[in-house]
Amino acid sequence: MSKFDSYFLMQPADVVDYAREKVDRFAAGARLECAEIGDGNINYIFRVWEPQSEHSVVIKQAGPTARISDAFVLSTDRNRIEAEILMLGQLLAPGLVPQVYKYDEVMSCCVMEDLSDYVIMRRALIEHKTFPLFADHITTFMVNTLLLTSDVVLDHQKKKGMVKRYINPELCEITEDLVYTEPFNDYKGRNDVFAPNLEWVRQHVYGDAALRLEAAKLKFGFMTHAQALIHGDLHTGSIFIKPESTKVIDPEFAFYGPMGYDTGNIVANLIFAWANGDATLGDPLEREVFCGWAAKTLVEVVDQFNQKFLTAWPLHATEVFAREPGVDRWYLDNVLSDTAGVAGLEIFRRILGLAHVKDITSIADEGARVRAERICMQAGLQFIKQRARFRTGADFLQTLLRSAAEHPRL
Amino acid sequence: MSKFDSYFLMQPADVVDYAREKVDRFAAGARLECAEIGDGNINYIFRVWEPQSEHSVVIKQAGPTARISDAFVLSTDRNRIEAEILMLGQLLAPGLVPQVYKYDEVMSCCVMEDLSDYVIMRRALIEHKTFPLFADHITTFMVNTLLLTSDVVLDHQKKKGMVKRYINPELCEITEDLVYTEPFNDYKGRNDVFAPNLEWVRQHVYGDAALRLEAAKLKFGFMTHAQALIHGDLHTGSIFIKPESTKVIDPEFAFYGPMGYDTGNIVANLIFAWANGDATLGDPLEREVFCGWAAKTLVEVVDQFNQKFLTAWPLHATEVFAREPGVDRWYLDNVLSDTAGVAGLEIFRRILGLAHVKDITSIADEGARVRAERICMQAGLQFIKQRARFRTGADFLQTLLRSAAEHPRL
Repeated sequence: MSKFDSYFLMQPADVVDYAREKVDRFAAGARLECAEIGDGNINYIFRVWEPQSEHSVVIKQAGPTARISDAFVLSTDRNRIEAEILMLGQLLAPGLVPQVYKYDEVMSCCVMEDLSDYVIMRRALIEHKTFPLFADHITTFMVNTLLLTSDVVLDHQKKKGMVKRYINPELCEITEDLVYTEPFNDYKGRNDVFAPNLEWVRQHVYGDAALRLEAAKLKFGFMTHAQALIHGDLHTGSIFIKPESTKVIDPEFAFYGPMGYDTGNIVANLIFAWANGDATLGDPLEREVFCGWAAKTLVEVVDQFNQKFLTAWPLHATEVFAREPGVDRWYLDNVLSDTAGVAGLEIFRRILGLAHVKDITSIADEGARVRAERICMQAGLQFIKQRARFRTGADFLQTLLRSAAEHPRL
Repeated sequence: MSKFDSYFLMQPADVVDYAREKVDRFAAGARLECAEIGDGNINYIFRVWEPQSEHSVVIKQAGPTARISDAFVLSTDRNRIEAEILMLGQLLAPGLVPQVYKYDEVMSCCVMEDLSDYVIMRRALIEHKTFPLFADHITTFMVNTLLLTSDVVLDHQKKKGMVKRYINPELCEITEDLVYTEPFNDYKGRNDVFAPNLEWVRQHVYGDAALRLEAAKLKFGFMTHAQALIHGDLHTGSIFIKPESTKVIDPEFAFYGPMGYDTGNIVANLIFAWANGDATLGDPLEREVFCGWAAKTLVEVVDQFNQKFLTAWPLHATEVFAREPGVDRWYLDNVLSDTAGVAGLEIFRRILGLAHVKDITSIADEGARVRAERICMQAGLQFIKQRARFRTGADFLQTLLRSAAEHPRL
């Protein structure tokens, strides 16, 4: 008999007991400490460590509702999905996700590598740290996890088994509402628009029926296009980073969806980082260093994704039609259109919707924040409406810089 | 204890015992007779009847391999899918599918309405019978089963549960190979081309890299586009018909796929009927009556589908974006492009592939068959390559008639 024979939501003291009883990584009788270290919207994250040995693990538990709000009742099955996806990620993109030591179905928790020497990338970016290897790391992660789980590579019957295994109705519904719908019509009254931009938003977003039509098209794509096992929430808050290493975490939104959902999130969140630097760094040299890195990384992410995708395609493809001339380029072009569309959606949902990002909300000066939001949103309009024309990193960067030029500093 | 406590493949004598023991539709001690009446590729179909009362049922059992060839090893789970889909069809499109009395998971069989007073539509069409109500019936069936199981109408979480429940890897793979791939590259050496057309096929089909590129695009759509719970094998051999009634049978290929797969199959199979009449009816009046009906029905199927789809959309849609102007038309246009693409694929696979149709193979005169096949295939080339331009019934018919005009009778 163990107190962990049936599910309950743990407190730090319970987690210490759990680590002693269930986790095979500490010396018998070791003194352990535990703290809840999570600040995400969904789950509870505990760090357990042995002060003497410096051994430590992270234990992530899913509650019956989202951490941020009891209004989101969620199946704890998301924790199984997360653990399995991390283990799969370790296979497909070695070193780019944390190691999972144990998954406990009863307690809906998983025990994994402690990344305390890493920082959440979004926080580092707000402090204007730069990560020269990030583009390389994240494009390897994306190409490997996306292309290798698609029908291009995977046996089609196995892939359908994976689609079934990772159907994720509840978390997909959150995305369908918060990313694909509410930013454009506020139909649940949950949007949270920065007041000085309200009139601009009414005119340029809520007043734009053509924009809603494009958002609708993208939404149907998200709901129906079972293309690859995507991460589903790949923003800079889901990435642990240090200069020499990048680890993608938090795949509980994973399901078979459009590849562009992951790539588009990376693009948009690099743009938020750029916008923050552009708005808050008074010193021109500091601004040039940080924004230059962000711009270069944006370009590299798209271009290296393209290059690695087209290189990996012939190496890994098993689908008999994949070798037909033009199929790879057609397939990639579709991913790139989705990338642009999703980058635009992510921009609007983070600026207008329920879940903001600190890159924008931490811009203290009102005029600077107004401008930063409009630069992002105007680029976002083009990403969504003209998504078929975005093919290279330069296409994305030019749109961003042109939007910035059209909004002169006050 | 019953001999039906564990699975075995039944013979007619077993089916009589089964009907006595398990089917609650005959008087106790009734004398029953049974015959295997199936001629499909996949399953075993038994008719059981009581000569005195004229009561009868049909019992359909799934074997561990396809009836046509032991090379296709199939999960008997397809019988569950079929029984459930028929029951769902009765709800969504009342009267347009046979009633299911019982589904037996152990024996992988289902007991259903006997439609012996109906005929298989393909056979009737080869005898040049006409069915003036068919377009109305089949468009109601398609609009109701397709639109009402899509994200337009169904709660998105429920729909994902349905996607999961009806994942159908084995039967989808048959379609992926036989319909989407082999006709265009014969990569398994299973194609069966009518010898006098072999050179034409080498030149116009196997020699056409652009055609394979388009087939590849459509194939990825079939594998990834979880749009609606489609029938998956909706040709005229899957339809029981009499003048006043139409019943769609054999949904064991059902899964969440593109709507256009069903509509395109109907279009192609009406074209086969037309081509048969055009090739075999010597009497101009008889030809005009039958081919005129086939042509009119082709047009009506597309146009009534469009009209009913756009009428049903605002009545049933629950997706919040579905009411945005233009979404219905955009969505329908995509279905119509897929319809054209699939109509073309079905033409090639039935003329070049492993599974021919009698409409074509029963054309006894060699020259007439050569011509009929080329008329169909040339239309098929345009359906596939120019699929975005097919919007109305007239668009389809004009392409067929133009192709016919370019192949004068010898």
